[in-house]
Amino acid sequence: RRYRIAVIPGDGIGKEVVPEGVRILEAAADKFGFRLDLQHHAFGSCDYYAEHGTMLPANWKELLTPTDAIFFGAVGWPATVPDHISLWGSLLQFRREFDQYVNLRPVRLMPGVPCPLAGREPGDIDFYVVRENTEGEYSSVGGTMYPGTEREIVIQETVMSRHGVDRILKFAFDLAQSRPKKHLTSATKSNGIAITMPYWDQRVEAMGEHYRDVRRDKYHIDILTAHFVLNPDRFDVVVGSNLFGDILSDLGPACTGTIGIAPSANINPEGRFPSLFEPVHGSAPDIAGKGIANPVGQIWTAAMMLEHLGEVEAANAIVAAIETALREPASRTRDLKGTATTREAAEAVLRAFAAA
Amino acid sequence: RRYRIAVIPGDGIGKEVVPEGVRILEAAADKFGFRLDLQHHAFGSCDYYAEHGTMLPANWKELLTPTDAIFFGAVGWPATVPDHISLWGSLLQFRREFDQYVNLRPVRLMPGVPCPLAGREPGDIDFYVVRENTEGEYSSVGGTMYPGTEREIVIQETVMSRHGVDRILKFAFDLAQSRPKKHLTSATKSNGIAITMPYWDQRVEAMGEHYRDVRRDKYHIDILTAHFVLNPDRFDVVVGSNLFGDILSDLGPACTGTIGIAPSANINPEGRFPSLFEPVHGSAPDIAGKGIANPVGQIWTAAMMLEHLGEVEAANAIVAAIETALREPASRTRDLKGTATTREAAEAVLRAFAAA
Ligand SMILES: CC(C)[C@H](C(=O)O)[C@@H](O)C(=O)O
Ligand SMILES: CC(C)[C@H](C(=O)O)[C@@H](O)C(=O)O
Repeated sequence: RRYRIAVIPGDGIGKEVVPEGVRILEAAADKFGFRLDLQHHAFGSCDYYAEHGTMLPANWKELLTPTDAIFFGAVGWPATVPDHISLWGSLLQFRREFDQYVNLRPVRLMPGVPCPLAGREPGDIDFYVVRENTEGEYSSVGGTMYPGTEREIVIQETVMSRHGVDRILKFAFDLAQSRPKKHLTSATKSNGIAITMPYWDQRVEAMGEHYRDVRRDKYHIDILTAHFVLNPDRFDVVVGSNLFGDILSDLGPACTGTIGIAPSANINPEGRFPSLFEPVHGSAPDIAGKGIANPVGQIWTAAMMLEHLGEVEAANAIVAAIETALREPASRTRDLKGTATTREAAEAVLRAFAAA
Repeated sequence: RRYRIAVIPGDGIGKEVVPEGVRILEAAADKFGFRLDLQHHAFGSCDYYAEHGTMLPANWKELLTPTDAIFFGAVGWPATVPDHISLWGSLLQFRREFDQYVNLRPVRLMPGVPCPLAGREPGDIDFYVVRENTEGEYSSVGGTMYPGTEREIVIQETVMSRHGVDRILKFAFDLAQSRPKKHLTSATKSNGIAITMPYWDQRVEAMGEHYRDVRRDKYHIDILTAHFVLNPDRFDVVVGSNLFGDILSDLGPACTGTIGIAPSANINPEGRFPSLFEPVHGSAPDIAGKGIANPVGQIWTAAMMLEHLGEVEAANAIVAAIETALREPASRTRDLKGTATTREAAEAVLRAFAAA
């Protein structure tokens, strides 16, 4: 087994945590007997933009399409490059042009992680957020009338297609069906957003007909965020639109202690294009360059990528090593109320991985 | 002082908690020497709809416009009337036609309320969510192409006007300026929702020029929900669009223990139309008719209404009575891990109010 992986650290703490993710990947390759062909890229970063006036080289598609996966850090450095250039010129472009229509984000309370919710134990919180990743509220269709005047009106369209909604729902139902609880929660707001959201509900019901064994419920997004805090043990698989999935997949990890450990996968399930794996945290300009970022998000992201590539054993071994390391207060970074540096926290996981 | 108040209990637990709210209003009138002219209405409920085929009588505007305020319970009974009829035919119509463009919701950790966040004390969490209440994501502009086919496309527009954005921002900045911390947080998502949300940011900056003494920051809605859980002590006044404000004003009360105690005001600040006061919780069909709903949300709503009418002393006395009552485990309802009935919980507040 040999995998071609594009490695794109991007900006800020992306540059600090990606090397740690690469180390665990290499250790996993050694231990589980597969080979990695890593292609490191400087593009997809604001440094690259400063030099070239563009986030990606003209031939980025030729470079990335033949890879088996993209191992991504974080992008964005608003102090020098506006978000709409850096994000829409890299990450959001990958998601769309590589048709990575599934954004999959596990929410799991790990041992040793101080949980902000009172009285919750590891095992209580363990679910997935499945986010639509290509259309919906992120459509970029719209514009401004009477710009710059008192009468100014600004419009942006949410666009949902049957194609786009059904395929994400199918993924979510399949995932729910594969899990012991077989329970799918849909995030909606059909009582307030009265055109697209009732449509979403209707497609959930239609798809549910094909999954009679999956228990299904729905909550409006406002009260759903409340339940994430009050009843996080209630969820198994939660599916939402681009915006709702975005919100829930930051809130979920926050409820389990920190977004610093949360991984995510941008998946093209058909495999026509490479999928992209990135931690949920962003480039974090406020702590960048200090060597204190939590590397666990990137390391867990490595595990998600290996699982996607079929290296399930290796993936499980990495997650187990994370759990072992986090149990040790000395290997926790500042966001986990520890004092470990990025390097020390990553070393702890590597040691646990080697020892297992 | 004499106030004309329209009382609309609506559906579900609205019918159970509104009478408790009325009791405290009457007690307050006695104690603080003002008069109430209460006009009870059965419309704005699904029962009314069942009988009349419409949520409101034809002359609802003539009936309600001359009142000083509307004291509202909750509306919605999806088992018999679809939400888009019950909500859009009453509550959402009031908000729009009475130009109640401010939705104001306090988020405060009360003594005696079990907080789902570990280690938080009363005093740690005390802020306001200011929500735009008439436009934005709730626009109802849009439609469907190729309905019922594989090619189906559904579009809904978010509409922001300079007029609509500036007036809610002005309200929020004024509120922030009136508070000791003078701190305003804006909810945005300009990195993903690339037309309307950058516009929102731009108007926040422009308005901020007139409020140099107000400290201002902004977070994208995804990470903002995370901060509500991880750093709720960071906020003073949080302003958001219709949808973002909706989400944050359920999440905030959840972080303080229950949405069962949270009040809200739908305000027309110019006073051209009556303002409407309602608890944040809805009609709660799952617990309706059992006499176990928490009446505190409706009672606190009564206090917000009195404050709005200028009866500040009475309002403060009610809030103080709520705090006293909640300290007593015996006066807490089930959502607060107590066993009190609606009646018992309300009696406890009334007793504390009378005793003070
Ligand atoms: C019932 C619903 C339409 C309403 C809203 O979203 O505005 C409610 O959630 C609220 O917050 O007042
Ligand atoms: C950076 C931003 C555009 C992005 C998103 O909203 O999709 C991020 O929040 C995420 O969740 O991946």
